[in-house]
Amino acid sequence: MLGRMMSLPLSIPSILDFADRFYPKVQIVSRTVEGPIHRYTYADAARRVARLANVLTRLGVGRGDIVGTLAWNGYRHVELYYAIAGIGAVCHTVNPRLFPEQIHFIINHARDRYVFVDLTFVPLLEKLAERLPSVQGYIILTDRDHMPQTSLSPVHCYEDLLEPEPETFPWPDIDERQAASLCYTSGTTGDPRGVLYSHRSTVLHAMAIKAADAFGLGARDVGLAVVPMFHVNAWGMPYVAPMSGATMVLPGPALDGASLAGLITSEGVTVAAGVPTVWMSLLAHVRQQGGSLAPLNRVIVGGSACPAALMDQFAALGVETIHAWGMTETSPLGTINQPTRATLRLPEAEQDAIHHKQGRPLYGVDLAIVGPDGAELPFDGTSFGPLRIRGHWVCDGYYRMETSPSHGDSGWFDTGDVATIDPYGYMQIVDRVKDVIKSGGEWISSIELENIAIAHPAVFEAAAIARPDPKWGERPLVIVVLRPGHKATEEDIREFYRGRVAKWCEPDKVIIAEELPHTATGKILKQALRRLYAGA
Amino acid sequence: MLGRMMSLPLSIPSILDFADRFYPKVQIVSRTVEGPIHRYTYADAARRVARLANVLTRLGVGRGDIVGTLAWNGYRHVELYYAIAGIGAVCHTVNPRLFPEQIHFIINHARDRYVFVDLTFVPLLEKLAERLPSVQGYIILTDRDHMPQTSLSPVHCYEDLLEPEPETFPWPDIDERQAASLCYTSGTTGDPRGVLYSHRSTVLHAMAIKAADAFGLGARDVGLAVVPMFHVNAWGMPYVAPMSGATMVLPGPALDGASLAGLITSEGVTVAAGVPTVWMSLLAHVRQQGGSLAPLNRVIVGGSACPAALMDQFAALGVETIHAWGMTETSPLGTINQPTRATLRLPEAEQDAIHHKQGRPLYGVDLAIVGPDGAELPFDGTSFGPLRIRGHWVCDGYYRMETSPSHGDSGWFDTGDVATIDPYGYMQIVDRVKDVIKSGGEWISSIELENIAIAHPAVFEAAAIARPDPKWGERPLVIVVLRPGHKATEEDIREFYRGRVAKWCEPDKVIIAEELPHTATGKILKQALRRLYAGA
Repeated sequence: MLGRMMSLPLSIPSILDFADRFYPKVQIVSRTVEGPIHRYTYADAARRVARLANVLTRLGVGRGDIVGTLAWNGYRHVELYYAIAGIGAVCHTVNPRLFPEQIHFIINHARDRYVFVDLTFVPLLEKLAERLPSVQGYIILTDRDHMPQTSLSPVHCYEDLLEPEPETFPWPDIDERQAASLCYTSGTTGDPRGVLYSHRSTVLHAMAIKAADAFGLGARDVGLAVVPMFHVNAWGMPYVAPMSGATMVLPGPALDGASLAGLITSEGVTVAAGVPTVWMSLLAHVRQQGGSLAPLNRVIVGGSACPAALMDQFAALGVETIHAWGMTETSPLGTINQPTRATLRLPEAEQDAIHHKQGRPLYGVDLAIVGPDGAELPFDGTSFGPLRIRGHWVCDGYYRMETSPSHGDSGWFDTGDVATIDPYGYMQIVDRVKDVIKSGGEWISSIELENIAIAHPAVFEAAAIARPDPKWGERPLVIVVLRPGHKATEEDIREFYRGRVAKWCEPDKVIIAEELPHTATGKILKQALRRLYAGA
Repeated sequence: MLGRMMSLPLSIPSILDFADRFYPKVQIVSRTVEGPIHRYTYADAARRVARLANVLTRLGVGRGDIVGTLAWNGYRHVELYYAIAGIGAVCHTVNPRLFPEQIHFIINHARDRYVFVDLTFVPLLEKLAERLPSVQGYIILTDRDHMPQTSLSPVHCYEDLLEPEPETFPWPDIDERQAASLCYTSGTTGDPRGVLYSHRSTVLHAMAIKAADAFGLGARDVGLAVVPMFHVNAWGMPYVAPMSGATMVLPGPALDGASLAGLITSEGVTVAAGVPTVWMSLLAHVRQQGGSLAPLNRVIVGGSACPAALMDQFAALGVETIHAWGMTETSPLGTINQPTRATLRLPEAEQDAIHHKQGRPLYGVDLAIVGPDGAELPFDGTSFGPLRIRGHWVCDGYYRMETSPSHGDSGWFDTGDVATIDPYGYMQIVDRVKDVIKSGGEWISSIELENIAIAHPAVFEAAAIARPDPKWGERPLVIVVLRPGHKATEEDIREFYRGRVAKWCEPDKVIIAEELPHTATGKILKQALRRLYAGA
C-alpha cells in the first residue's frame, strides 16, 4: 500500500525556484574575472537562468546533452548550473587546473556539445580546440566590451546571447534520477573518471549538508564558496545557499589571502568552505596585516587533511574549523567533524585528537571498514581496513565506463582509503590502500610516517613508500625534501622517529631528495617515487 | 540520461540503523507509565525493534496491514514506530484525547488489526472493544508485573511477547513510496480524516527539520518531545533525533510543569517541542518554584498561535522560542520562524511583529495565497487570501476517501486558512477560511477580533463569528466569557474595540455568555456558535 503523499521530484530547478519565491532579495555577490564586484538577487538570477535556458535551447542543447564549463566561482557559473540542469541537460564542470592533456581527454570523453569559458581560460582552450570534435561552439562568459580576440570558433559572447531572450522558460518535467551534472576525478593513476550526479542525489546532498551538524547554513548566514565550482560542485554551496535563504559569495579568480580577507569582512561572510591551502594564505595575510575576520565564525575545511596549525590559528581568531571529508564520487560530503554531547565531556587532549579526525557520516550515507576476509571490522578506533561508503549521493559507477574497479557486487563504493572508525562514530583516514606499507602481516601508515618527518624542523615535504623486502614483504622508505637553508642528515631524520612510532614501524632508510613529483592538483605521485626509489 | 548514483530507498528503518551504527551509546530516556525513568541506547532500541518485528510477524501482521497504538511518548512507542514501518506495515497512532465515538470511528475506518495500548488507556478501549470488529487482539505496553485485569480479549503482555524473540529480523525491501504511518485529523466538522504518510515523506520531513533554521538538532543536543507521538508523529522528533545522533527524551504521561522542569534539568534537555498549553504550565511552575531551565536553549512551539507572554517569559529564562506552523496533512512542518539576515537589521518592534508570525517555509514545501479569481496574490505582507501548500511531505488525499474537499486539480492542498506572506517570506495566519467575516466585499479576521477581546482584562475567552446582514452580507458578532469575579458590560467590550481596529471591522454586537462549546482537543466550535447566535 502506497502512502497518500504528493509525488514531486527532488529537482535542482526547485531550489532556485524556492529562493526566487521566498528570498527574492537575498544576494549572490561575485568577484568577476573582469574585476569589479557584481551583485544581484536570487530573483534576478532566476530571470537570467530562464534567459539562459532559452539560449541553450536555441543552440540546440536538449535533454541528456552535455555542456562543458571552464570557469571560476561567479554568478554566470551559477546560472549555468541551474539552466543546464533545468532543461534536462548535464552541466560538465571541467577543472582548468588539470594538465591540458587531461582536459582534452575529459572534454572528448564527455562529448561536450558546447563549452562555456571564463576569459582566463580562453588561451588554454584555444590550444586544444582543434582536437575537440564534439564541441559545436564556445561561449565566452563576458559582455561585449570584454570580448577578446580569439581563435575559438564558432564563438559567442554570453551577454549578447542572453540579452534578447525572454525572462520565462517552459521548464520541462524532471525525473529526479535524471543526470544533472558531471565532474571528473583526477586520480593519481589512470585516466580521469566521470561522476554523473542526478537531480535527486544533488538535492539530498544539499539537504544533508544544511543540517546543524554539517554546514548549518541558514537565512542568517553569508556563505563563501572558496572551493571551486569546477571541483565537485563547490561542495554543494551553490545549492545549499539558495535552499537556505543564505547570501552566497563567490570569489572569482582572486583566491589570494588579501582578496579573500577583504571579501569576508566587506560582505559579512559567516561560513566559508575551502581547501587548507587557501586558508593558509588567508591566515598568513591576517598575520601580516593584523585585523580580524569577523563576522566569520566557521570554516569548512576539506580536500586534504587539515593541519593542526590551521585549526589553532583560526581558533585564535574566533573561527571554528570544521573538518570535512569526501570524494568526487561522494558528491562530496561523506563525513564532517563536529563534536557530540559525549565527546564534549572528554578530556581536552582527547577532544583535540577527535577534532583532527575526518568526522562522523551524515545521515544518508553509511560507512564500513573491512578486514582481509571482507568481514566488517568493529568501530573501536583502532581496527583499520579499507573504507567503504554507500548512500544516496554516492556514485554506483562512472560515466561511459562499463565496469568500475571501485564498485564490486557488495553495493558499496571502495574509497581506496584505509581508515578507522571510533566508538563515537568518527572516521579517520589512516592511508590510501595503495600507499599503506605491509610489513610482516602488519600495516604501517605512510601518512603517519610522513607527518612525523614533516614535524622535523628541517623538513619541507616528505613521502613514505613501501620498498620490497625479502623477509618482511615490504619495509618503509621515507624520502624528504629539506627546507631552503636548513640542514639535516638522513641519520638525523631516522633518529627523529625514535619514540615517535613503534620500533618496527620506523623507516629502514631515509633519502634526502631535491624535489618530489606532483600531480596537477598538487598530490605527491607515489607511483613515480616507487619507480625511482623502490629498489634503492 | 539517468545519473550514475546509488539507488537506495528513503526508508524509516534506515534511520534507526544509522543511529545503531554510529550512535550506539546515545540514549532514549523515557518516563514510563509505570512510574520510573527508563533508559536505554539506540543500539538497545534496534535490538528490541527486531524482536518486535518478529512478534508482529508471528501475530500475522504483514505488508500493508494497519496496527493501532494508543500510547504516550515512551520507548515502547518508539519501538512500534520502527518495527511496524520496518516490516512494511502501517503504524496508526490513535489520539486518546478524542471523544470515544471518534476513536471508535477511527479504529474501524482504519481497520486496525491489532491495538497496542498503554495502561492508562485500557479502560477507554474496554468500553469500545466489542464494537471494533477488525481488531484481532490487544497488546498492553507493559511487563508481566504490571498487567492489569482487563476485559480486552485476546490480550497480550508486550514484554512477554518480546522476551522469547530473536534480536535479528530479515527486514524486507522497502519501496520509499510505501505507507508507513497513519494519523487522523480531528477537524471541527465532519468525520476525522486519515493522513497516510510514506517512508519517503517521513524521511524528507525529518531531513528538512534537522536544518539549522528549523529544529537545528545535532549530536550535541538532547531533544524532548512533549508533543504527543499520537499527534502527527510528535512533529518528527522520533525520526530526527536518531538521524542526528541526539539524545531523545520522552515524558510519558507526566506533562505537568513540575515533571517537565525536572526532566529538562536532570536530563540536560537543550531543545523541546510542544504546544503552548504545556509551556504555560511549565513556565507557571518555574515562576512559583524559581530556578532555571538550563541547559534548555530553544523551544519549538506549534499547534496553535504562540502567545506573546510565553515568548517573553522564555526569553527571560534565556530560552529562544521558535514558532512553527503545520497540519496533520503536512507531516506537520510547513513553516518555522527563525530570523533572517535582513530581518535582524529591522527595528526591534518590526522584528517582534515578525517573530509572532507563523514563519518561513522549509525547503521542500511551497506556499501560495490566492485571490477570489484563483490567481496568486503577492507576498507583500498585507494581501491575504486562502493559503495553499504543496511539497514532498504534504498529503495528496486521505486514506480510504476517494475525493478530498481540500485537494483540487491544482496540485495544491487547501489548508483552510487565510494568510498573508511578507516580502521576507514569513507567512501569517489571518483566520480560518470558514471563520473569516465577509463584510461588504472586505474580509474581517475573526482571530484579530478575538485577540482584541482577550486583551480586555475581564475577558477569559472570546469567539468572533459572522452574522448574516442584509446590507453588508455579513457583520461581526463577538461572544465572550468573562473571567470569574470580573465584570464588564457588552457595551464595555464594544467600547474596547474603538481605535484598536478599523471602524468598519468593529463588532456590531457583543454577547456575554456563560461558556463556549469546544472540541475534544480544545478548539472552539464556531459552527455551534453560529447555530446558537447567528440570528441573534
